[in-house]
Amino acid sequence: MEIKSIIRKKRQKKELTKDEIKYFIGKIMKGEISEAQAAALMSYIYINGLTEEEILNLSVTMAESGDVIDLSDIAPNIVDKHSTGGIGDKATILLMPILASLDIPVAKISSRGYGVSGGTIDKLESIPGFKTDLTSEEFRNNIKNVGVCIMNQGLNLAPAEGKMYKLRNEVACENSLPIIASSLMSLKIATGSNKIVFDITSGKGTYISDREEAKRLAKLLVRLGKNLDKEVACVITNMNQPLGYSIGHNLEMKETIMALRGIISEDLGNVVEALGSVMIALATDSKDLDANAKMIKEAIRTGAAFEKFKEMVAAQGGDTSYLDDPELFRRSKYIMPVLATESGTIEAIDADMVGSIAVYLGAGRMKKEGEINRTAGITINKKIGDTVTVGETLAYIHTDEDGKVNGTTQNLQQAFTITNKKINFKSRVLEIVK
Amino acid sequence: MEIKSIIRKKRQKKELTKDEIKYFIGKIMKGEISEAQAAALMSYIYINGLTEEEILNLSVTMAESGDVIDLSDIAPNIVDKHSTGGIGDKATILLMPILASLDIPVAKISSRGYGVSGGTIDKLESIPGFKTDLTSEEFRNNIKNVGVCIMNQGLNLAPAEGKMYKLRNEVACENSLPIIASSLMSLKIATGSNKIVFDITSGKGTYISDREEAKRLAKLLVRLGKNLDKEVACVITNMNQPLGYSIGHNLEMKETIMALRGIISEDLGNVVEALGSVMIALATDSKDLDANAKMIKEAIRTGAAFEKFKEMVAAQGGDTSYLDDPELFRRSKYIMPVLATESGTIEAIDADMVGSIAVYLGAGRMKKEGEINRTAGITINKKIGDTVTVGETLAYIHTDEDGKVNGTTQNLQQAFTITNKKINFKSRVLEIVK
Repeated sequence: MEIKSIIRKKRQKKELTKDEIKYFIGKIMKGEISEAQAAALMSYIYINGLTEEEILNLSVTMAESGDVIDLSDIAPNIVDKHSTGGIGDKATILLMPILASLDIPVAKISSRGYGVSGGTIDKLESIPGFKTDLTSEEFRNNIKNVGVCIMNQGLNLAPAEGKMYKLRNEVACENSLPIIASSLMSLKIATGSNKIVFDITSGKGTYISDREEAKRLAKLLVRLGKNLDKEVACVITNMNQPLGYSIGHNLEMKETIMALRGIISEDLGNVVEALGSVMIALATDSKDLDANAKMIKEAIRTGAAFEKFKEMVAAQGGDTSYLDDPELFRRSKYIMPVLATESGTIEAIDADMVGSIAVYLGAGRMKKEGEINRTAGITINKKIGDTVTVGETLAYIHTDEDGKVNGTTQNLQQAFTITNKKINFKSRVLEIVK
Repeated sequence: MEIKSIIRKKRQKKELTKDEIKYFIGKIMKGEISEAQAAALMSYIYINGLTEEEILNLSVTMAESGDVIDLSDIAPNIVDKHSTGGIGDKATILLMPILASLDIPVAKISSRGYGVSGGTIDKLESIPGFKTDLTSEEFRNNIKNVGVCIMNQGLNLAPAEGKMYKLRNEVACENSLPIIASSLMSLKIATGSNKIVFDITSGKGTYISDREEAKRLAKLLVRLGKNLDKEVACVITNMNQPLGYSIGHNLEMKETIMALRGIISEDLGNVVEALGSVMIALATDSKDLDANAKMIKEAIRTGAAFEKFKEMVAAQGGDTSYLDDPELFRRSKYIMPVLATESGTIEAIDADMVGSIAVYLGAGRMKKEGEINRTAGITINKKIGDTVTVGETLAYIHTDEDGKVNGTTQNLQQAFTITNKKINFKSRVLEIVK
């Protein structure tokens, strides 16, 4: 077997055997094929695709490149929620304590963020002391004792996926369905969850261009799940504006805490209920999604979810005084309003543009190991459906660098589409595929 | 400008601007884009091609990544011959002194070999003392004084082409016409020749699969030449057997010397005459190819070409006693006959297979900087059209490693196709495109 023949084979649209895929991943892990060769193969995969058999083999092979966690002794059903990435997305953090407060164990293994989509791990680490570099033992104990735990993907969970993820960002293959699907499934195999809800974000600011593409990915993930003895459901959401009111690490943690205390934006609440109700349906006998959504609302209203979050944060070493008083989170030196230059109703907010500006302000990593500025980011003051008059504040820029204020203001104005039409709130949940 | 957008653009079959191509090559040279990114772009070029405008811009940009030699003060017409690579090809070395003996100045800049196709520089360096790492000054002086010189491509002639050449071998893009064409033209721009004959070898054992593909490349090179103020002609040859009687460094030098002394195989003589007559037509007013071929025969018959070769070797520090007595070239420890297992007439000899076996025996580089064994190789005893009976010697294996003799014998037998049909000698020159 030889890598150049494998590259040529995929270039000729032929199906790779399991052995060829194992050879490729094995050689990547040993550093015995070059990044150039891996990139060439990935480029031809982008163009010619992978069969489902190939995706399955790639998923399993990447999962088996590191440790595979078995959580079956903790609970028969370990539910997991995974988003394909969105701007301002804090649904994962919210759902963990919500579900745990409903006695559904949540074992979450996540990674740090890269580029515009902030990582769940990074956001939680804004709480001083919060520890995510756990041993497998600590992780299991927390799930047993608290009912919920999150840990950093770390080096030895599907390390081959880590390499492929880095490569796919490097060579502009972020939006390749077979590559996304095999990455997602390899992580789910490695982390041992058997009930998985994927939040597939589509539209601007995401890797999935439109609803049809999202549906293709969703159906693919459901079928792959079946082949791997995992129950998968997908919630397709529309990224027509950033989720909730904030983008940036400290800002998003503050919003998350307020949401658990009952102050939650309409779109975020809507997404959390949709995803959560499907998660409950997968993990328990309660299959009525509307009833499940009510349970979620109740968990927030009664404070049960917030209490569970405090317990979870405490168990992972975090300072819970930040939960009681979110004003403790440090703010940026400069917080500047971005004003509307026309009047009307907000029709859309370009999440991609908002994400890029947030990264420019310091809220994202430009490299996988790069630094982030925890206070930097954007708060959205007007969301879709809100009316606005000239001079009103659309959003705020948060940054420690005064040189970044001026140019950014105008760019951020351009992210808002303002119309004279009447705009009603529409759920960002487009469809559930299972 | 950003490399990922350029990658996406070519993936979408769009034409890259001159600035984008300059950006790409500039960033490669500075090491500011990764090999993975360069490989991805090359892979999409493989699939989607390049327009002639893009090839021109790529050629010029790669040429300008290093020194561009100007030889116009030495002679108005500097003729160059370049082969796309063939097994056992020693036509370049033969043509240099032949043309120089006819008062046509030859300035040859070449590179070391890689894989199965041996480099002209490597072959000449088999003559003890022969020096090809020359300064530009030494090179010019030799051309002025002797009429002919060959120098190693070195680090500063089209270094970007060197990087692309390495990459294209690494990611299986050796047979991409736009990549081959831009590589060839960039070298010709950098080396300052204005009359160029390309020997395009097609068929097994070459990068060009068939005659149609070779014709496409030939026409492309002629058109590119016009746009660059260079007169280009292409001779399409068929690699249906290795050229001449030997493959391997010392073996080929011996054959070359014997050829200049008048003992030349039919196919090699035929190719040399075809290429040489076109070179003469480009460089002089003598446009009749048949008359030119006769001049070449005469240059060999009279010994003028051989004397010029001696002069050239001496001028470059080589030991001319090897030319007077080729038996001085060291031989391999083991020289084993490969016998025919059936009787008939030789119909074809798989040059690709012969080349691979020669590399296995030690006669090729597996890496661009690797070692070669000068004595290793293969001598062919029966060529196309020759009759053979069971037990007769088809070829000889030359190697210093006795462990390599046994398996190789059988493989080499399989490279020969033996038939009951009558086979006449056919010129390997298929077509001249200008």
